[in-house]
Amino acid sequence: MIRVTIWNENRHEKRNPKVTAIYPEGIHGAIKQGLEAYGFDARTATLDEPEHGLTDEVLSSTDVLVWWGHLAHGDVSDEIVNKVHERVLAGMGLIVLHSGHFSKIFKKLMGTTCDLKWREANDKERLWVVNHSHPIMEGIGEYVEIDAEEMYGEPFDIPAPDELLMVSWFSGGEIFRSAVTYRRGLGKIFYFRPGHETYPTYHNAQVIRIIANGVKWTAPALHDARKFGNAKALEAGVE
Amino acid sequence: MIRVTIWNENRHEKRNPKVTAIYPEGIHGAIKQGLEAYGFDARTATLDEPEHGLTDEVLSSTDVLVWWGHLAHGDVSDEIVNKVHERVLAGMGLIVLHSGHFSKIFKKLMGTTCDLKWREANDKERLWVVNHSHPIMEGIGEYVEIDAEEMYGEPFDIPAPDELLMVSWFSGGEIFRSAVTYRRGLGKIFYFRPGHETYPTYHNAQVIRIIANGVKWTAPALHDARKFGNAKALEAGVE
Amino acid sequence: MIRVTIWNENRHEKRNPKVTAIYPEGIHGAIKQGLEAYGFDARTATLDEPEHGLTDEVLSSTDVLVWWGHLAHGDVSDEIVNKVHERVLAGMGLIVLHSGHFSKIFKKLMGTTCDLKWREANDKERLWVVNHSHPIMEGIGEYVEIDAEEMYGEPFDIPAPDELLMVSWFSGGEIFRSAVTYRRGLGKIFYFRPGHETYPTYHNAQVIRIIANGVKWTAPALHDARKFGNAKALEAGVE
Amino acid sequence: MIRVTIWNENRHEKRNPKVTAIYPEGIHGAIKQGLEAYGFDARTATLDEPEHGLTDEVLSSTDVLVWWGHLAHGDVSDEIVNKVHERVLAGMGLIVLHSGHFSKIFKKLMGTTCDLKWREANDKERLWVVNHSHPIMEGIGEYVEIDAEEMYGEPFDIPAPDELLMVSWFSGGEIFRSAVTYRRGLGKIFYFRPGHETYPTYHNAQVIRIIANGVKWTAPALHDARKFGNAKALEAGVE
Repeated sequence: MIRVTIWNENRHEKRNPKVTAIYPEGIHGAIKQGLEAYGFDARTATLDEPEHGLTDEVLSSTDVLVWWGHLAHGDVSDEIVNKVHERVLAGMGLIVLHSGHFSKIFKKLMGTTCDLKWREANDKERLWVVNHSHPIMEGIGEYVEIDAEEMYGEPFDIPAPDELLMVSWFSGGEIFRSAVTYRRGLGKIFYFRPGHETYPTYHNAQVIRIIANGVKWTAPALHDARKFGNAKALEAGVE
Repeated sequence: MIRVTIWNENRHEKRNPKVTAIYPEGIHGAIKQGLEAYGFDARTATLDEPEHGLTDEVLSSTDVLVWWGHLAHGDVSDEIVNKVHERVLAGMGLIVLHSGHFSKIFKKLMGTTCDLKWREANDKERLWVVNHSHPIMEGIGEYVEIDAEEMYGEPFDIPAPDELLMVSWFSGGEIFRSAVTYRRGLGKIFYFRPGHETYPTYHNAQVIRIIANGVKWTAPALHDARKFGNAKALEAGVE
Repeated sequence: MIRVTIWNENRHEKRNPKVTAIYPEGIHGAIKQGLEAYGFDARTATLDEPEHGLTDEVLSSTDVLVWWGHLAHGDVSDEIVNKVHERVLAGMGLIVLHSGHFSKIFKKLMGTTCDLKWREANDKERLWVVNHSHPIMEGIGEYVEIDAEEMYGEPFDIPAPDELLMVSWFSGGEIFRSAVTYRRGLGKIFYFRPGHETYPTYHNAQVIRIIANGVKWTAPALHDARKFGNAKALEAGVE
Repeated sequence: MIRVTIWNENRHEKRNPKVTAIYPEGIHGAIKQGLEAYGFDARTATLDEPEHGLTDEVLSSTDVLVWWGHLAHGDVSDEIVNKVHERVLAGMGLIVLHSGHFSKIFKKLMGTTCDLKWREANDKERLWVVNHSHPIMEGIGEYVEIDAEEMYGEPFDIPAPDELLMVSWFSGGEIFRSAVTYRRGLGKIFYFRPGHETYPTYHNAQVIRIIANGVKWTAPALHDARKFGNAKALEAGVE
């Protein structure tokens, strides 16, 4: 059973009644409930817990980490970010959602600014599948439509993705690379765009399906066969 | 005329007579001489200069930065690394040579450990071209052969390259992805493997040709049309 | 001076007065005029000429071939397609425009159906740049806007592009990977979406600029260093 | 249960006693036996059967097709090749082995010559893993060593792979991209180099493990959500 930890900064939920009304259990709670229906062993962790809820014990028993942050990226300690980074490179899956594009961990893994264009204006978003045979797109159909969402537009300052899965159309006139994958070290990374806190996006069954598919795809393989460092020659005559 | 700055930590040259004998003007001096023959405006910078020779004035007037480091990656200040990082994302080309795989700037841009396998044992290296139409491979032929070099072997813990140009064969039995390119932000990055300090690799005309081709390829385009941040809708009806 | 041959099936121009009015010299004539302003040595070839205007002499003296076809893909002889295919693999650049997605030569190079979604309905098209440091995007800005065009939508049944340069937004609600590059053999290929025959798209200066940039990018390198077939061992002891 | 059909031209086995001695049940028989141990539903088909054993019924009930051919690529009928091509684009997995690089089906899917360098001379081959988190590499370790094999060397005239999994080292001095993946249409394709008929390569447990992993990875997803062709606007105001 894949062990998923859903991390959320959980600040909007405490401050903004509109967000609390949509996510009474927090964004993390909504995602947890959604993923449990797929049979994952899900738990949550939030910014204001000790060590942000990401103790060594939690990290070492997490197969896939889901990350949602927005207001408080700067409050996440570098020490924890370094531990998460190390775990991803060692094989832990990482799913970065929406405004997590500006999280320390995503920027550290990408090496770029991860900046983008944005607008809070009730755009309609339609996410088109462009890689239909990818397991993360299983059961999704041609596109996912979300009646109202924050707009994210290009340029999106990320490395060229290893795989581009979806591109968003916004009614205001923009497009965005919305579902992209990367491999870094032994870890698999999936960035998925939707999920502004003032919309009920994580109650959308297709959005949860994509995250669940992402959990399966990013889940780690079992061991590390790599050997780094000084190495003797495998052939004779080299010393 | 493309303005190239060749950065070298320049420590081996001061300590190891064998290295001094091979590179009396330093590794940076040998590369500078080699690149000048291609008509570039080349200068050098070294670790022990103030600000490691990479002042704001130098960085802002550099089109392509060539980087060689080995012993003293930890002595490079984070402040300078951050400035170089920012310049690369803004379009400055970066060529990372040999043991620069472990430099702070390369690891920061890649997001991975950049670790690898190695051996100092007079291996023969043969770098095979696998992307013959790429401009960096222009005039190189089928392969480059180097009689004796340090071995670098897989696993090489880097992101999957945007483009794989050469793969090395070593007489001791290993292979290595030796010439790889990346785009990060507006910057183009070229990692090129050969160049251990105890071998006369940067006196090899083909090696210099590849670095010169790399300078042309990584040289920046002229301006930045990207607009990040809050954006009004381009279509009516979205507010 | 780069030698460009612009190939056009030139059928709509003869049959449809609306098209003739927009392109009195044919689509090929408009593109030729546009490219000549960039200093290329441009000529044209059309379907109804002997050998479709693509004799051995023409092909062997062409650096970059631009291809526009729509109604009459089936009328292009397999023999000529095979010759073009061979020339592309040997290094000739190929720019495939708009409905050329269904041409024999593009399908042969891609290995897929190249099918897509389409609508003739005066959609507005906005092509967003997603790879700002690529030479084909030089001087283009953030996006190109075309007031009215035929819509092409995903799924677009092509291999994952080597490089994705632009994604189109259409007012009817679709997106499309509009500017993509591939390397095949020694040849570079650029597919660029806009250009339905009933719109004056090839009179648009930005569209021509992109095609001109594409000509420079797809232009061949000078020679072929590859050696195929039986090969003696480079190391002793293998016979 | 994944249904695998192993296709073999089965000519060397009939003509060359050395091959018969190594593969008394044919290369297809050895692979079938190897894959059955992984729990797949495996069957075989050979060139000299009616329709080369690839009837509509067989193709439509095949999840993954494994292909070995060498002497007789030209004897495979274009009609059957077209049917296999159509099935791959519709989602059937395809694993192309060794000299299958020159098969009609592989060349048709790649769009290139698929030519390479070769030598029959008892080279030692060592296949190094360069993508350790890929499911096809599961359980393989750092490398696979084969005491004697035919050499295949670069240049290998294929499109840049979607994923590069292994690179071979040969004792004669060459390297080769030995395990590569592609997506074409809904189909997943895995090319895997080893397997010359005069060596017992398909009795090697690691080689079989990689092919078995490849079967799992190339196995098709369940349905096709793509809609091609004419499409009405999804947004109002476009007609």
